[in-house]
Amino acid sequence: MNLILLETTDYISPNRVRLNDYRFQHIREVHRATEGDELRVGLLNGPIGKGCLIEMTGSFVTMEVQLEDSPPAPLPATLLLALPRPKMLKRILQSISSLGVKEIYLINSYRVDKSYWSTPILTEDNLTEHLKLGLEQSVDTQLPTVHLRKRFKPFVEDELPDLVKGKRALVAHPYQAASTPTASLEPTVLAIGPEGGFIPYEIEKLQEVGFNPIELGQRILRVETAIPFSLSKLFPLV
Amino acid sequence: MNLILLETTDYISPNRVRLNDYRFQHIREVHRATEGDELRVGLLNGPIGKGCLIEMTGSFVTMEVQLEDSPPAPLPATLLLALPRPKMLKRILQSISSLGVKEIYLINSYRVDKSYWSTPILTEDNLTEHLKLGLEQSVDTQLPTVHLRKRFKPFVEDELPDLVKGKRALVAHPYQAASTPTASLEPTVLAIGPEGGFIPYEIEKLQEVGFNPIELGQRILRVETAIPFSLSKLFPLV
Repeated sequence: MNLILLETTDYISPNRVRLNDYRFQHIREVHRATEGDELRVGLLNGPIGKGCLIEMTGSFVTMEVQLEDSPPAPLPATLLLALPRPKMLKRILQSISSLGVKEIYLINSYRVDKSYWSTPILTEDNLTEHLKLGLEQSVDTQLPTVHLRKRFKPFVEDELPDLVKGKRALVAHPYQAASTPTASLEPTVLAIGPEGGFIPYEIEKLQEVGFNPIELGQRILRVETAIPFSLSKLFPLV
Repeated sequence: MNLILLETTDYISPNRVRLNDYRFQHIREVHRATEGDELRVGLLNGPIGKGCLIEMTGSFVTMEVQLEDSPPAPLPATLLLALPRPKMLKRILQSISSLGVKEIYLINSYRVDKSYWSTPILTEDNLTEHLKLGLEQSVDTQLPTVHLRKRFKPFVEDELPDLVKGKRALVAHPYQAASTPTASLEPTVLAIGPEGGFIPYEIEKLQEVGFNPIELGQRILRVETAIPFSLSKLFPLV
């Protein structure tokens, strides 16, 4: 946790917060902070700054906070991701959130097992929890939005044309000769398929609404490796 | 498993292999292959090609194999990685292997918990197993070498100067203003610290033997995200 993420409900006065949950435990056990120490804090969907520890009891911590800095700029990326297996989903959500993606569509695909859609990780509270872990890791405060789209065809036909308007639209597709991406801050919609890839019908449907298949090298990467690898390739450092 | 990795002991005649382990199960249950089907196969540390399924029983599969292609070129990268926590180590090894890194040094660092060094994952057999999973994922056959270096100072002082000779030597260090890396196929030694980063003393020691700290953007990434992200940034697609 490189940033303690605050919420408006943590405030006990205009510049003072009190925490008694996992953040309190983290400050006590990992940071081992004591009175007078300064920690990096940020307000969910708000600014970043410093929290000075003014009181630590056995059950809560109180900090005086000063929030003056902006969170890092979001990556101009919308990620369309075939729903990963639940076992991997938590870490993938954290990873995506830490990378600065703010719009995430978890979509269906032929090779997504139907059972994946019933995982409790997809409840709003659980999604938020894992996305917040990514923010706390990467020193950001802007919570990504996750959209669940359980039906591929209506999503691609009815919703995707508007989503990609004015953006570059790319699909990572290792099984087809295609162009190599270049790094650009242009707004981008990137589609990443399931393990085993999108099926040809799905690639065709994506191409119909303007997606270009891109190749990310000869190697076929697992989804959790392909996401940071491709985002790093598609966007310059800022 | 995008490639079935063969070993010389699998051969029952010059062009014929018989498999009865997890690969047999994978071919039967995931590929659902039947007689006449062709699968991508490769010989460990050797060429890649096709295996034609000629016999499938309840306990083994026999394939006629033709190996004519070269495996993908290795990434010209040596990775120095502060030993990650065991829980993450398996997947990190698979990920590194799938990315084409062939020289991996797992090193100690102040923020590496001593207990991590006693994980059974660090036995040669277990390391090989996870590295092979990465090769099977990424359609490669060249097994990476893992070196364990439990003492930071002697490794950096006595071994590292020779290792970095004629190579660019970079350390990912989010806490210090530094240059941004560029993509190049130049042989590169990349050092990635533990969660929380290398301590200033370690950064100094690395700088003494020629390492330059690089910044990978404003965000602090977890190790498993930072590895593909930084390798993607440092090397062009080939």
